[in-house]
Amino acid sequence: MDFWFEFASTYSYIAAMRVEREAAKAGVAINWRPFLLGPVFASFGWSDSPFNIYPVKGAYMWRDMERLCKDDGITLRRPSIFPRNGLTAARIACIAADEAWAGDFVPAVYTANFARDEDISSWPVLEAIITELGHDVARVRERALSPENKEFLKSQTAEAADCGIFGAPTFSVEKELFWGNDRLAHALRWATS
Amino acid sequence: MDFWFEFASTYSYIAAMRVEREAAKAGVAINWRPFLLGPVFASFGWSDSPFNIYPVKGAYMWRDMERLCKDDGITLRRPSIFPRNGLTAARIACIAADEAWAGDFVPAVYTANFARDEDISSWPVLEAIITELGHDVARVRERALSPENKEFLKSQTAEAADCGIFGAPTFSVEKELFWGNDRLAHALRWATS
Repeated sequence: MDFWFEFASTYSYIAAMRVEREAAKAGVAINWRPFLLGPVFASFGWSDSPFNIYPVKGAYMWRDMERLCKDDGITLRRPSIFPRNGLTAARIACIAADEAWAGDFVPAVYTANFARDEDISSWPVLEAIITELGHDVARVRERALSPENKEFLKSQTAEAADCGIFGAPTFSVEKELFWGNDRLAHALRWATS
Repeated sequence: MDFWFEFASTYSYIAAMRVEREAAKAGVAINWRPFLLGPVFASFGWSDSPFNIYPVKGAYMWRDMERLCKDDGITLRRPSIFPRNGLTAARIACIAADEAWAGDFVPAVYTANFARDEDISSWPVLEAIITELGHDVARVRERALSPENKEFLKSQTAEAADCGIFGAPTFSVEKELFWGNDRLAHALRWATS
């Protein structure tokens, strides 16, 4: 099952914290697929998160996040800046996925943003995570910022749009899309049926 | 628990078909609260359903409806006109709620629209449903179209906006909102905790 996520996305935080555990229970392997929502939102004429453009939706979302995180035992501290730019983190996540450590890196970045209000667009924050996970910062940085990897993230973002993905998180099983953290169980049922 | 619905809303169809059965299992009473999404969407600058404004969302929604209806044993026939105007049906639903037959009327109207592709904005279709349910059409029509009832639906729509409701279906338990058919179980847990 493909797990499509964007680091700025709040509901992707909860999904990122649950997906590996739930998928393992169901016996389903996860492909971590970082992408950027910016181009999708731009195609809708949005230059900001819909939760900022439509404040009534934003108010609901933050309250809902609070309830869901409490239920799932996930710490939530509303970021002082929302949405934060997740471009660099997404580039690193492409490398982490390629090297099979996305399952550690992705939840760590979400936790920095949504539990500790750290600026995940800054290198020091990302470096600390990479180091903590035992990887060589210089090597990862070089791979993440290489022209090939920048192109890879662009093409993965284009692939998301081509698949009909318009929000995050989205779970996909072949051509079937399941949008939203609350559809994880449905996606896993589909993957195993 | 309050069940806020709009007759044009696709996911409200599934919710309307499930809510009474699921609420009964949980021992929760339902208040049927028809309202209009038009004024909410107008406040967002939308003059049509977001599923028409953003076709990629629409494509996802129809495929998702297909899967969900199949799982729940609910017939779905994509309406030839979408969204259909639910104003008159909503006015009648206010009366049905007042007279405690909304639990029969509301699912019947949704079924006409989403399973039989009938024009629920037309009187003959609504009359047939009222008659089938054993109510006097002339009496219901008079109450539904009275100035008091028109005002009541307006004020209920305003109340929805005041509560922070921005989509349908929404379940509310005191000040807590749960948006979407897929949040019914969460709303019921909240109502009984």
